[in-house]
Amino acid sequence: MKAARLHQYHQRLKLDDVSEPDIDGPLDVIVRIGAAGLCRTDLHIQEGQWAQKSGVALPYTPGHENAGWVHAIGPAVTNVEVGDTVIVHPFISCGLCGPCRQGNDMHCLNGSFPGINRDGGFADLLKTSARSLVKLNTGLQPKDIAALADAGLTAIHAVKKAIPVLGPGTRVVVIGAGGLGHIGIQCLKALTPAEIIVVDPSERALMLAGELGADHTVRADGIQRNTVAELTDGHGAEAIIDFVGERGAIEDGIAMVRDGGFYYVVGYGENIDIPTIDVISREISFIGNLVGTYNDLHELMTLTAQGQVSLHTTTYPLEAINDAMADLDGGRLQGRGILIPAGA
Amino acid sequence: MKAARLHQYHQRLKLDDVSEPDIDGPLDVIVRIGAAGLCRTDLHIQEGQWAQKSGVALPYTPGHENAGWVHAIGPAVTNVEVGDTVIVHPFISCGLCGPCRQGNDMHCLNGSFPGINRDGGFADLLKTSARSLVKLNTGLQPKDIAALADAGLTAIHAVKKAIPVLGPGTRVVVIGAGGLGHIGIQCLKALTPAEIIVVDPSERALMLAGELGADHTVRADGIQRNTVAELTDGHGAEAIIDFVGERGAIEDGIAMVRDGGFYYVVGYGENIDIPTIDVISREISFIGNLVGTYNDLHELMTLTAQGQVSLHTTTYPLEAINDAMADLDGGRLQGRGILIPAGA
Amino acid sequence: MKAARLHQYHQRLKLDDVSEPDIDGPLDVIVRIGAAGLCRTDLHIQEGQWAQKSGVALPYTPGHENAGWVHAIGPAVTNVEVGDTVIVHPFISCGLCGPCRQGNDMHCLNGSFPGINRDGGFADLLKTSARSLVKLNTGLQPKDIAALADAGLTAIHAVKKAIPVLGPGTRVVVIGAGGLGHIGIQCLKALTPAEIIVVDPSERALMLAGELGADHTVRADGIQRNTVAELTDGHGAEAIIDFVGERGAIEDGIAMVRDGGFYYVVGYGENIDIPTIDVISREISFIGNLVGTYNDLHELMTLTAQGQVSLHTTTYPLEAINDAMADLDGGRLQGRGILIPAGA
Amino acid sequence: MKAARLHQYHQRLKLDDVSEPDIDGPLDVIVRIGAAGLCRTDLHIQEGQWAQKSGVALPYTPGHENAGWVHAIGPAVTNVEVGDTVIVHPFISCGLCGPCRQGNDMHCLNGSFPGINRDGGFADLLKTSARSLVKLNTGLQPKDIAALADAGLTAIHAVKKAIPVLGPGTRVVVIGAGGLGHIGIQCLKALTPAEIIVVDPSERALMLAGELGADHTVRADGIQRNTVAELTDGHGAEAIIDFVGERGAIEDGIAMVRDGGFYYVVGYGENIDIPTIDVISREISFIGNLVGTYNDLHELMTLTAQGQVSLHTTTYPLEAINDAMADLDGGRLQGRGILIPAGA
Repeated sequence: MKAARLHQYHQRLKLDDVSEPDIDGPLDVIVRIGAAGLCRTDLHIQEGQWAQKSGVALPYTPGHENAGWVHAIGPAVTNVEVGDTVIVHPFISCGLCGPCRQGNDMHCLNGSFPGINRDGGFADLLKTSARSLVKLNTGLQPKDIAALADAGLTAIHAVKKAIPVLGPGTRVVVIGAGGLGHIGIQCLKALTPAEIIVVDPSERALMLAGELGADHTVRADGIQRNTVAELTDGHGAEAIIDFVGERGAIEDGIAMVRDGGFYYVVGYGENIDIPTIDVISREISFIGNLVGTYNDLHELMTLTAQGQVSLHTTTYPLEAINDAMADLDGGRLQGRGILIPAGA
Repeated sequence: MKAARLHQYHQRLKLDDVSEPDIDGPLDVIVRIGAAGLCRTDLHIQEGQWAQKSGVALPYTPGHENAGWVHAIGPAVTNVEVGDTVIVHPFISCGLCGPCRQGNDMHCLNGSFPGINRDGGFADLLKTSARSLVKLNTGLQPKDIAALADAGLTAIHAVKKAIPVLGPGTRVVVIGAGGLGHIGIQCLKALTPAEIIVVDPSERALMLAGELGADHTVRADGIQRNTVAELTDGHGAEAIIDFVGERGAIEDGIAMVRDGGFYYVVGYGENIDIPTIDVISREISFIGNLVGTYNDLHELMTLTAQGQVSLHTTTYPLEAINDAMADLDGGRLQGRGILIPAGA
Repeated sequence: MKAARLHQYHQRLKLDDVSEPDIDGPLDVIVRIGAAGLCRTDLHIQEGQWAQKSGVALPYTPGHENAGWVHAIGPAVTNVEVGDTVIVHPFISCGLCGPCRQGNDMHCLNGSFPGINRDGGFADLLKTSARSLVKLNTGLQPKDIAALADAGLTAIHAVKKAIPVLGPGTRVVVIGAGGLGHIGIQCLKALTPAEIIVVDPSERALMLAGELGADHTVRADGIQRNTVAELTDGHGAEAIIDFVGERGAIEDGIAMVRDGGFYYVVGYGENIDIPTIDVISREISFIGNLVGTYNDLHELMTLTAQGQVSLHTTTYPLEAINDAMADLDGGRLQGRGILIPAGA
Repeated sequence: MKAARLHQYHQRLKLDDVSEPDIDGPLDVIVRIGAAGLCRTDLHIQEGQWAQKSGVALPYTPGHENAGWVHAIGPAVTNVEVGDTVIVHPFISCGLCGPCRQGNDMHCLNGSFPGINRDGGFADLLKTSARSLVKLNTGLQPKDIAALADAGLTAIHAVKKAIPVLGPGTRVVVIGAGGLGHIGIQCLKALTPAEIIVVDPSERALMLAGELGADHTVRADGIQRNTVAELTDGHGAEAIIDFVGERGAIEDGIAMVRDGGFYYVVGYGENIDIPTIDVISREISFIGNLVGTYNDLHELMTLTAQGQVSLHTTTYPLEAINDAMADLDGGRLQGRGILIPAGA
């Protein structure tokens, strides 16, 4: 089969012919990829940022946002059948360890992460496990929802953590209305009554944010802190969801959060660097977020089937992976980039 | 009356004769100080660290950990009577703003903080408000519990936030077994089934921690991270409660927290400085803590009356305030320093 | 002033001339009534159902859903000024007892309940307290929102309790789309992503429910259990909010709740009577609801000002109180009945 | 192998020779029974109370509280090995349905319940599944902990639900200090700071309750309501945990719960029958409880290994099952009855 593989850090991917994955274990499932989302993390992988954390051996196939159709199943699989349309939770979890039993699939003690530390979905076929599959019987198509497997999942995971602090009359600042942010806005709209303030440097992104339900859009023009202060009676917002995590976003976000408020860290790149005296005298909290649980993905699929969440995408054939990555890196990619294998 | 006042930053306090406070408002209460706790924050105030944050005009009277007897009450006060023994919540809150109505007294939009931004309790009398008083009808005496008004309150506030993540089989690392830490250990023991690991450089502090219920005590000897890793099966602890916040505690604490875990920031001094990629890939959270609510103080008094929490203290007459501060600064003060006015 | 008073149980109210209330305490507030809602509880009061529970001495003035303008304030009142438009939380709470400090105003140990156990708002003026007032600076008028003070407050209180079990993909059954139910539907729509199923015998009520956002409306025609079973894949709904509590609603609701689900009791009249073996083998829970907190009312006012909640009302002059009560009792009252004093 | 089977309702069990269970599925596990607890539910089964609910075909083998050693495993089992000491979660769950993914194993949509609706553990061998096993590597022995698989699990499940309402200064009433109650008391002691009041008709049970940590023991002598009222300042307790559910316990419990409080239903037999006006005017809630989750069982094993929970038991050889049942029915059984197969 075809697979777009990384042979060396800082190099372009190569479209290789590789052997197809096999069913080894009774709960294995092979998915024929219908669509695979392109994520900023794929750029970070290429740059070597994840080399040490993932420990993956090169060459390998990235691609951690996958949807498609069940191609083959192991003998103990009961929840899907060959031919089913599925979206793939990015993590392969064991189902038996402590974190799994608590539903925290992404902290599985025996897990792996296709596209990060083993072969992912920039290929014709992907090997995963029964526990990772959400069956779609709602007419949703792989190319329309693949990017929800990670971008969307991460967004809803962070939004769900914020629900308890976002009652009527509260405000939430969304920093970044790109691939994750534009889904986050829709999840906030569907799940909370909070007033949504979106901050982004791009007028186009802000226009989209407004269409998706943002109550206020604020251009990141250098004085965005002041604008947010005015929109929040000078107190700041109960919650910040930061989908950027670099280029000044963090200092900005800290300035925008209300005393006693919460800062949800999603985007990454630079450091949180804050005096502890500010953390305690303002009683602010920083909440980490790592993709999401299987249940988060299931709920996101429900919202999508109900029409409450939709993705803005640009599709590329799988063989154009390097063009897609260059477009993403260059800020030319509108919405989420989606790669489609030749046979899909 | 006598009051120990700060006339200039970086100078010693002076014991002045000042006029007694008056009842102005219907909910005012004047408390005759029975005992006032000495806090590391008082050193930070003297050093000017709080000058800008508090905006207080010098000279003024520090002292934010107070207990005593009701001396005079305003006409609308119904919850205490002259002569009642009371502990004083450190914040004067309005009771009517949003945060107050949610029980977050310390975020009152109209509040003030005696000892920080107005005259505090290093004096014969303190002016506060009806809402700030917890009546003690349990035989507890001011000198035995004064330091619970801030040190204890802050400790229980942080511990209560950690309860939901500290079920059976979990571990919590307490960094620092001093004034706050030794109360935190007792609160953890009373409120959670977690295994308690205490880290401190002082053998004496660790011995006390063991007596108070710590399951493991770890000397901060440079390799404490490794020791904690061994005690937690290599995974780290579900919660870190950091009562130090400086001198390497933060880097240590971050290394000791389990993926998906929580870091409660209580002590302060240095910065949290962490790459966001670590925050998200490990999904760790930093939770700020600012003193505590009225309900926290009430609950702490209940635990104290039940004998589940007790304070280790060293008492000084109020006129020896500068000796007490020097002892605290020099690490010679065992337990919490307590100042007793001449007439008490 | 004029007041509609109950002189004897089972008798009509009389419009009496009574003396105006006075400011006695420093936190007292007198409100000039702009509008007072009529509640089914007023009928139950007239029938004597509350006689023993309230212990009120006759004659007295019912009316516990009040809004208007501040007429006079005590010397310690800081949160409102004469002339302010306000809605009145139905409970007068002390602000100092345990339940008050936890925000559970309606369980105040020193509280009273105008319209239930002391004079209420079927009059020109109402005496209440500073803590009971939500100031409206949003253009909302008393006649448009008075009924939110109890009917709306009770509805949002129950809905807020249900939020944690009403994630994406869940279902909630609302039993009764009348005075409380039609607000409950709007609160559910604003605060949760759950699919809303409304059951009511009246086609007109169901039509209104559909306009307000119900996803499914089910005529209570004797086989409503089966219809709900079909709408919930045979499993039942995660939550039932029962605004009726009599005439078969309870048996119905129990049949409609999913195993592991929650039944929120709001309407009253008959008994819950269920074998404990069913409670445990199905692990179902019954959650009581009593009006709501001050914060609930504040949040409801925010939703109303945002246009997310609106009331369907029929207004009557105060002197027509007995007509209004007869209409309510006879099922002829569409929406909530609102009484307007002559001078308002 | 030997199995004690029910051939007809209202008849004694018979010790039959039956064929051994086989490994059919890849996740199947056969456990050699070391000990099986006897539960009041076994009497109710014999009486036919569960006939319709379970739909089980006679003859079959009861016994739903099991512990032992792994005897055989299917090819996909990774969490246990032959020879491991295990306690058996009473439910066989699929791990893939909605409730399973949320950790609510006992509401599995594809589950079964050995000892209730299929063959249980009153036998030499029991067939279960990998997901149902908690491995014990702590020296705990089957006979010492078997009864925790249901009695203990149910008790900790109810206690864990009550944790959020049982802070310092609150009270909990435990109704019934028998098989479940005496574990419930220990769990309350380990997991909450609440004052524990235990009500039981038996002096011996109350003496045991006192030894296990009850703060107050109250003889159920007809005026127990008054005694509890005195112990709770006339307000009642924040939580009632009712392990009896019959013989007046329910009316008693309702009279003992504080306004705004919670009633946890565990024992069963009679009806909850309460006017909805009392439910709403007092805002009390009834919380159903059905055994517990896998995580609950895991946590209970941790508390047991730490010495915080221990069982009071009387052991019988398996062939004496009918004597044991008669003793339980006749009130002659002290602690939990434990059945030991001949070979164990």
